[in-house]
Amino acid sequence: MKIVGICGSVRAKSLNMMALKTVVGLLPAEVSFEYARIDDFPMYNQDIQDGPGIPAVVQRVADQVRAADCVLFATPEYNWSLPPLLKNGIDWVARTKDQPFAGKQMALMGATVGTFGTARSQLHLRDIMIPLDGRMMNRPPVMIPQAQNKFDADGKLTDQPTMDVLKMFATNLVAWAAAGKK
Amino acid sequence: MKIVGICGSVRAKSLNMMALKTVVGLLPAEVSFEYARIDDFPMYNQDIQDGPGIPAVVQRVADQVRAADCVLFATPEYNWSLPPLLKNGIDWVARTKDQPFAGKQMALMGATVGTFGTARSQLHLRDIMIPLDGRMMNRPPVMIPQAQNKFDADGKLTDQPTMDVLKMFATNLVAWAAAGKK
Amino acid sequence: MKIVGICGSVRAKSLNMMALKTVVGLLPAEVSFEYARIDDFPMYNQDIQDGPGIPAVVQRVADQVRAADCVLFATPEYNWSLPPLLKNGIDWVARTKDQPFAGKQMALMGATVGTFGTARSQLHLRDIMIPLDGRMMNRPPVMIPQAQNKFDADGKLTDQPTMDVLKMFATNLVAWAAAGKK
Amino acid sequence: MKIVGICGSVRAKSLNMMALKTVVGLLPAEVSFEYARIDDFPMYNQDIQDGPGIPAVVQRVADQVRAADCVLFATPEYNWSLPPLLKNGIDWVARTKDQPFAGKQMALMGATVGTFGTARSQLHLRDIMIPLDGRMMNRPPVMIPQAQNKFDADGKLTDQPTMDVLKMFATNLVAWAAAGKK
Repeated sequence: MKIVGICGSVRAKSLNMMALKTVVGLLPAEVSFEYARIDDFPMYNQDIQDGPGIPAVVQRVADQVRAADCVLFATPEYNWSLPPLLKNGIDWVARTKDQPFAGKQMALMGATVGTFGTARSQLHLRDIMIPLDGRMMNRPPVMIPQAQNKFDADGKLTDQPTMDVLKMFATNLVAWAAAGKK
Repeated sequence: MKIVGICGSVRAKSLNMMALKTVVGLLPAEVSFEYARIDDFPMYNQDIQDGPGIPAVVQRVADQVRAADCVLFATPEYNWSLPPLLKNGIDWVARTKDQPFAGKQMALMGATVGTFGTARSQLHLRDIMIPLDGRMMNRPPVMIPQAQNKFDADGKLTDQPTMDVLKMFATNLVAWAAAGKK
Repeated sequence: MKIVGICGSVRAKSLNMMALKTVVGLLPAEVSFEYARIDDFPMYNQDIQDGPGIPAVVQRVADQVRAADCVLFATPEYNWSLPPLLKNGIDWVARTKDQPFAGKQMALMGATVGTFGTARSQLHLRDIMIPLDGRMMNRPPVMIPQAQNKFDADGKLTDQPTMDVLKMFATNLVAWAAAGKK
Repeated sequence: MKIVGICGSVRAKSLNMMALKTVVGLLPAEVSFEYARIDDFPMYNQDIQDGPGIPAVVQRVADQVRAADCVLFATPEYNWSLPPLLKNGIDWVARTKDQPFAGKQMALMGATVGTFGTARSQLHLRDIMIPLDGRMMNRPPVMIPQAQNKFDADGKLTDQPTMDVLKMFATNLVAWAAAGKK
């Protein structure tokens, strides 16, 4: 089973990447996990697509998504919505041939320094996946507020209630990915 | 009176820019209108802000917004949400000192080749402006579907019903901008 | 295979009921379809639940939903959201024991006299089903604008493009319901 | 100055009513505050409007709203959206002649037993007020999580951080209402 992870932050000490890595560490050995890199995409402009065409870096991620049984998004929240980096990654991949999010199992999680843990950006990300026909897992919600207090200096999760949620999330994620296998 | 316009598309033949220019052409002579350029911003990453700091190109737009009585957004819709270009512009400007969208009068419009005329991306843009305390005009909604059939080769609006809506929009926009003047 | 239909309007000449009946007429013979009645529910108030308990009329619908392989919602749009009648039906059923929307395959459609065909109320209905873990079908979207011009006096659909969409919808609905069968 | 309050819950021990009353207690003496009662409205059905007409209980609230400088909503959150009671109240009032929410200053607040304090139902309530042209205050957000632990047996607010937010909210509310005075 293959799961591909897409993180909406490329900060050196990204809390979302810490959370994502925590989930990856909880996956069983038979799951092959790889990250998809979206920070080397140009800003989306249809004129690029219509002219030079889909960039190779975009096609590479599209291929990763197509080959995966499930996509796992980790999204920050900026101004109650997702970061432009993540929207840019999705918009580009969505324009590739036989767009690969269609019918794909997927799940989302998020962490913030604030009190709402990406409740709003997750709603927007879900909206975005409707026209792309992504099949988003619902439970358990993973919205980690005050995340800066829940990881140590090495990025290790130290908050037990959050760990309990992530364990349930990892378990459900594997079942969700399996449900999508042809 | 000053109004600053921000377009979410930099395509050479952007339908949203055509619609925006049409509205600008309907504004009375006493309104000073200028465009804010957001396509030379780097992709938002808080590490840039925390390291090198706010880019000069971002600060320039922040100053334009602060000096304006009203901001006018023209937004495409990609996958039921706003383009990464526009989200990136907003997220950057929102991080400048005394963030300039706070308490600012603003309005939005959009055009698409599809049938819903940016109904969904406008909802997301409105959501985004809540935490930033933007004061978004409600009426009339400007959601131009099948826009590719409503402008001629020179970008001139040829659809009379759309022109009627844009005239009302321009009138209300001036009143809305005036209501925000100190 | 069993599908249960819930209509958000009880108007005598409800366009949504006409659209719903059209879909029902397109279902293959092996599908058993029944309507769930929600217009005899009291207005939701948790004090009713905590006192007299779940009304029998609510439990009846909860049982219908649980027994079904799929739920089909037809929703009008009032003020960019769903009608209180439909929200009330959902909120009540959601409070029954082993809430029956959890893990349930479902789909939604809508018709309006306006131009956006319930694009916004469908977004809200999808949001509502996230915490309830409903599994909402994505394609094709069925948002019927100007519906008053698309049905004849007997409630028969006369618009061929809409009929084509509804046929695809009915086909996908059966496959979606089948995917949820244990 | 007149402010009218509409509460989305009629529970005997409604946390939202407790929160609303707390705000009312913080308003200066020159503000006249009254509650609008929406729990005696029939479930919205356009056939009622087209037949017997707008119920007198609805017209009474429409008149209250029209006479007010500002409307204050207190909304619970059921399944990530507003309660049917509140949607029903709004939908009915919105159908009265010269619908009175148009151009009206308004604000919203909410309390929940859960962790997100009505973050999602407030988004939906804001969406609903866009087509009605309500002018919703943005700051400060009042989303009271774990509200059951923040009021005593008499409904008195005992949580100081929440009280601080409500004081700022009451101050801003008066200024917001004043800004809308003709």
